Amino acid sequence: MRALVLEEKLKLSLRDIDLPLEVGPRDVRIAIHTVGVCGSDVHYYTYGGIGPFIVKEPMVLGHEAAGTVVEIGSEVKSLKVGDRVCMEPGVPDLTSKASKLGIYNVDPSVTFWATPPVHGCLTPEVVFPESFTYKLPDNVSFAEGAMVEPFAIGMQAATKAKIVPGDTALVIGAGPIGIMVALAALAGGCSRVYISDLVNEKLAIAGRYEGVIPVNVREQDLKAKIAAETENWGVDIVFEASGSPRAYDGIFNFVRPGGAIVFVGLPVEPIALDIVSASAKEVRMETVFRYANVFDRALALIASGKVDLKPLITGTYDFEESIAAFERAASANPNDVKLQITL
Amino acid sequence: MRALVLEEKLKLSLRDIDLPLEVGPRDVRIAIHTVGVCGSDVHYYTYGGIGPFIVKEPMVLGHEAAGTVVEIGSEVKSLKVGDRVCMEPGVPDLTSKASKLGIYNVDPSVTFWATPPVHGCLTPEVVFPESFTYKLPDNVSFAEGAMVEPFAIGMQAATKAKIVPGDTALVIGAGPIGIMVALAALAGGCSRVYISDLVNEKLAIAGRYEGVIPVNVREQDLKAKIAAETENWGVDIVFEASGSPRAYDGIFNFVRPGGAIVFVGLPVEPIALDIVSASAKEVRMETVFRYANVFDRALALIASGKVDLKPLITGTYDFEESIAAFERAASANPNDVKLQITL
Amino acid sequence: MRALVLEEKLKLSLRDIDLPLEVGPRDVRIAIHTVGVCGSDVHYYTYGGIGPFIVKEPMVLGHEAAGTVVEIGSEVKSLKVGDRVCMEPGVPDLTSKASKLGIYNVDPSVTFWATPPVHGCLTPEVVFPESFTYKLPDNVSFAEGAMVEPFAIGMQAATKAKIVPGDTALVIGAGPIGIMVALAALAGGCSRVYISDLVNEKLAIAGRYEGVIPVNVREQDLKAKIAAETENWGVDIVFEASGSPRAYDGIFNFVRPGGAIVFVGLPVEPIALDIVSASAKEVRMETVFRYANVFDRALALIASGKVDLKPLITGTYDFEESIAAFERAASANPNDVKLQITL
Amino acid sequence: MRALVLEEKLKLSLRDIDLPLEVGPRDVRIAIHTVGVCGSDVHYYTYGGIGPFIVKEPMVLGHEAAGTVVEIGSEVKSLKVGDRVCMEPGVPDLTSKASKLGIYNVDPSVTFWATPPVHGCLTPEVVFPESFTYKLPDNVSFAEGAMVEPFAIGMQAATKAKIVPGDTALVIGAGPIGIMVALAALAGGCSRVYISDLVNEKLAIAGRYEGVIPVNVREQDLKAKIAAETENWGVDIVFEASGSPRAYDGIFNFVRPGGAIVFVGLPVEPIALDIVSASAKEVRMETVFRYANVFDRALALIASGKVDLKPLITGTYDFEESIAAFERAASANPNDVKLQITL
Repeated sequence: MRALVLEEKLKLSLRDIDLPLEVGPRDVRIAIHTVGVCGSDVHYYTYGGIGPFIVKEPMVLGHEAAGTVVEIGSEVKSLKVGDRVCMEPGVPDLTSKASKLGIYNVDPSVTFWATPPVHGCLTPEVVFPESFTYKLPDNVSFAEGAMVEPFAIGMQAATKAKIVPGDTALVIGAGPIGIMVALAALAGGCSRVYISDLVNEKLAIAGRYEGVIPVNVREQDLKAKIAAETENWGVDIVFEASGSPRAYDGIFNFVRPGGAIVFVGLPVEPIALDIVSASAKEVRMETVFRYANVFDRALALIASGKVDLKPLITGTYDFEESIAAFERAASANPNDVKLQITL
Repeated sequence: MRALVLEEKLKLSLRDIDLPLEVGPRDVRIAIHTVGVCGSDVHYYTYGGIGPFIVKEPMVLGHEAAGTVVEIGSEVKSLKVGDRVCMEPGVPDLTSKASKLGIYNVDPSVTFWATPPVHGCLTPEVVFPESFTYKLPDNVSFAEGAMVEPFAIGMQAATKAKIVPGDTALVIGAGPIGIMVALAALAGGCSRVYISDLVNEKLAIAGRYEGVIPVNVREQDLKAKIAAETENWGVDIVFEASGSPRAYDGIFNFVRPGGAIVFVGLPVEPIALDIVSASAKEVRMETVFRYANVFDRALALIASGKVDLKPLITGTYDFEESIAAFERAASANPNDVKLQITL
Repeated sequence: MRALVLEEKLKLSLRDIDLPLEVGPRDVRIAIHTVGVCGSDVHYYTYGGIGPFIVKEPMVLGHEAAGTVVEIGSEVKSLKVGDRVCMEPGVPDLTSKASKLGIYNVDPSVTFWATPPVHGCLTPEVVFPESFTYKLPDNVSFAEGAMVEPFAIGMQAATKAKIVPGDTALVIGAGPIGIMVALAALAGGCSRVYISDLVNEKLAIAGRYEGVIPVNVREQDLKAKIAAETENWGVDIVFEASGSPRAYDGIFNFVRPGGAIVFVGLPVEPIALDIVSASAKEVRMETVFRYANVFDRALALIASGKVDLKPLITGTYDFEESIAAFERAASANPNDVKLQITL
Repeated sequence: MRALVLEEKLKLSLRDIDLPLEVGPRDVRIAIHTVGVCGSDVHYYTYGGIGPFIVKEPMVLGHEAAGTVVEIGSEVKSLKVGDRVCMEPGVPDLTSKASKLGIYNVDPSVTFWATPPVHGCLTPEVVFPESFTYKLPDNVSFAEGAMVEPFAIGMQAATKAKIVPGDTALVIGAGPIGIMVALAALAGGCSRVYISDLVNEKLAIAGRYEGVIPVNVREQDLKAKIAAETENWGVDIVFEASGSPRAYDGIFNFVRPGGAIVFVGLPVEPIALDIVSASAKEVRMETVFRYANVFDRALALIASGKVDLKPLITGTYDFEESIAAFERAASANPNDVKLQITL
């Protein structure tokens, strides 16, 4: 099977590789149509690893995928050949304690596409469990279907925030994840979402959505602006989506008494957190790890028109041009949000 | 002070009446600009009472109001003369156990405009506590300001539902309250909202909003439709907003396992509820009583453009035509959602 | 395999029956030591069915069991031969939507011991999935292990109540389930629990536990007592555990504004519920269906000494005397809480 | 009025001082019976301030008090002369946004006994608002009544933890606050509570309570112990009650996937927090600031016998010996938990 293979750090090949394609009774075989390029894919390409996950063997990249069911296992009931689908790339042990609690994303034994040593899906066909394969509504394209995975991170953050209808929010960081979080927060009940960054191109993309208020922190005093626009109360929820160590300094200034901070960005080193300031406002802090139980709700929001992710797809490449797509992604053009590869 | 007075059942006068206008240190005096006609006002007019609340003395009607601050008490800080405002018409004892818990709406000692024996606000000026008077954002008109109160009921229902981003909902009943609930549920995080009724005119008004799916239950099998469109799972939340005894029969068919039902409508008699069916799905049931802590969030949603209530204002009358407004409201035209009176 | 078989309504045999004992890779084989007699077992015996579940073929009874692992499947990791265990008798499809959400108890495809057509565990050996088999702490006896299942119902009710530390509660009905609920509520954070019934023997058993306050509603005015002892506020939580239609009449009188009612009892017919009274207090209503994710927490409470279920075991029979145990259970002696059978 | 006055850092006097004793319509006048010595009182004595709160003028100390009502205001309804009471020492502006939400403890305008420039209650009589004065049940002594305030901090922590019945917990730090947290967590639904410290005397006091498991981290590997006793899962909740910077290092090792950490201790400097480790388990982090709405629930737990605080009172002094009490408290004897002063 031909696939985009990360041979080692900085070395990609488009070549044949042996991949298991046996369809178990509750599996489906899917012809991949579109795969998005994720920051983590690029990180493996550029650095050869992420934290404890080191690429030691050649590994197929890709985990944001949509395609068409071409074969179903003997016990599959919810899907049929020809169904257009997207896939949730993390598969837990459903008998684990975490899975039984409904938080299967934090099951320590989860396997995840394109996380060493597990191959990803940048290849024409994959076999996947029925229960983590989601039918696309008729009005959701493959391109949108391949956006569900990154949007799911925003959905998980918005879900953990426990938004109360009409809440205000601040998203720190207007990268792809920050924008996903802002859109999920708005669709998920917020009245308006401030989004802050240092780069005007990124803010401009975010600011095109109604209800998103971009703030360049080089040009505006974010704390003063939020105070002025919330009667000195603060926003109900802060989403930290930059992972930048500086973002945590003074973060409690933005949130209202009794509000929440959701940590989405992953700073490499421990950050300095002022517990006294957090406590004076009794701030709740939430963390997220991928997502659980949000793919169907993400699809419902896209299908209903509440969330439009199409403007975020800033480039599409043929499978044969995959390496070029990765090189462009690695160049970190501030006007790019999401590049996709079609097969 | 001239006012619209309900003298007794079926007898309205526009006449002078003595109303206290003393401004306490934390009160504001407000020149009323717009007052909406509520179903409860009409009910007092038509029946002379609602449940235990009987009109025994002449009572000024009206509780959905917006206006302009014309005087402030000596200790008022958050408002100034000239501020455009709307008012939350229920004022609790803030020292009560319920108020301290943040559920001041269920404080038994709450006083509420136009609920006997408390006068309402269909009169040129009122005095009101600063802490229940909310500044209108610049882009929110008086007409919209007077819509905050009925929308607040929808907000309370949406809040109690504990919507998870992307949830699906069904609202039973497309009257004014049902529509408010549907809009609050959508703005509050639902992906799509089915709304059911028997009257096509009402459904047509609701259906003009994107994301609202009208269902005439004389013409369509609601249970079958929901099953078909939710993969036989059911909606996450059912809002019962009709108060009709028939609505409770089979209500658990619409909701998914682990879902919720919010009872917004108030059936006159006890209803028959099938606890076994509710239990088989472990349904959570919530009730609402007016609202608490939602006016600011309602205003934020209106100001941000997420909620547009203007199309629901189907008629506006001068104060001197107040009685005509009430007569039209009492006629229950299915094309009317909200009539307003301007002073 | 010898087993206690319900041949048909009112006809029990202790006889050989063919039961599958194949151990799958993630299964364990268990030598049963103790099985409790449940009200549902007795109901099948007496009536031949419960609601839609009709005994059409001979069925082995029993679902409250503890025993010893005698064989493990090839992939079993958390258990070993010789481990003393108890079993959660409902096994869902772990790939279902409900299971993925952590509410596997409401998965429509769950199979449950001794619920037609599934055989129960009143037989010397059973095979069961590892993931629903729980190791008994060293200081928890087999007799207590077989009490975990009925206590789990109380745990589920206490969990759904969302007890805030120090809450007060009322349990309506002092039968076995009512007592389990009262103990779970106390251990789960309540400061004190009123329990009401008509039968003094039952109340006496419940009242032996510190923190449980028995009230015979023939002798005392329950509403007046609760009002007097809660400063006219009401209890935070009412658990309805009688299933008696009369219990729902006036039930909202007992609960405080903003409080909760958990419906544990299952009335045969729909009950009349006064939505207006519920709404005036904004009461939340929860329902329960068996349990999910509570066996380990139930065991932790028993092992730590916070919950002592031993006094509730009012009779123990040898396996060969099983039919006598069922006859005594069917006689509904008010001094009996739980009868057990040892193998 | 005679009072214990902190003249300045390290200088206490027992002398007359002018204190307002005017009883407003909703106030009560209370003859103080017992006052506990709090760590914050001692901190003001030793350091002359806590963070931004500097003692610039002579200030009466004391905020953990119980006494007897000797006069009531004209509108007081819930209390009468002769009632034995304890007082919640923080009084917010009940009209504030925070108070309306039920989180009056984080109202920025709260005034709090013995927090500069507000005088405390170590004086024979005080005037206090009815709504923050709580009647003691008959079986709760003045000494216990004066323990409600420190126990309230534990209650707030236990409430924020959102304990699910049967949860396991770890409390880091066995000082007075750590012990209060452990007792509140146990009474509030935990099955067992590990408590860790470096000082055996403190651990011995905590370990006298059933369900509390002391761990000296100099002698035992806490992480290994918790792993071994929770099947490598971790405790459901960690309460950090030491405020020691070292406690935050590796804190996520103790908690289970999906668990919670409640920060109760207040480290002087920002602490280093490993967001990646927190995220991998999707840990929720809560902070606490004093308490709100817990005094009545604390009293209910003490009155029912679920919580026994009497063993924690390790010394009682006459009012005239107040300075000696403070000197002993300042000496930080590890066998002391709470010293009290009676008037």
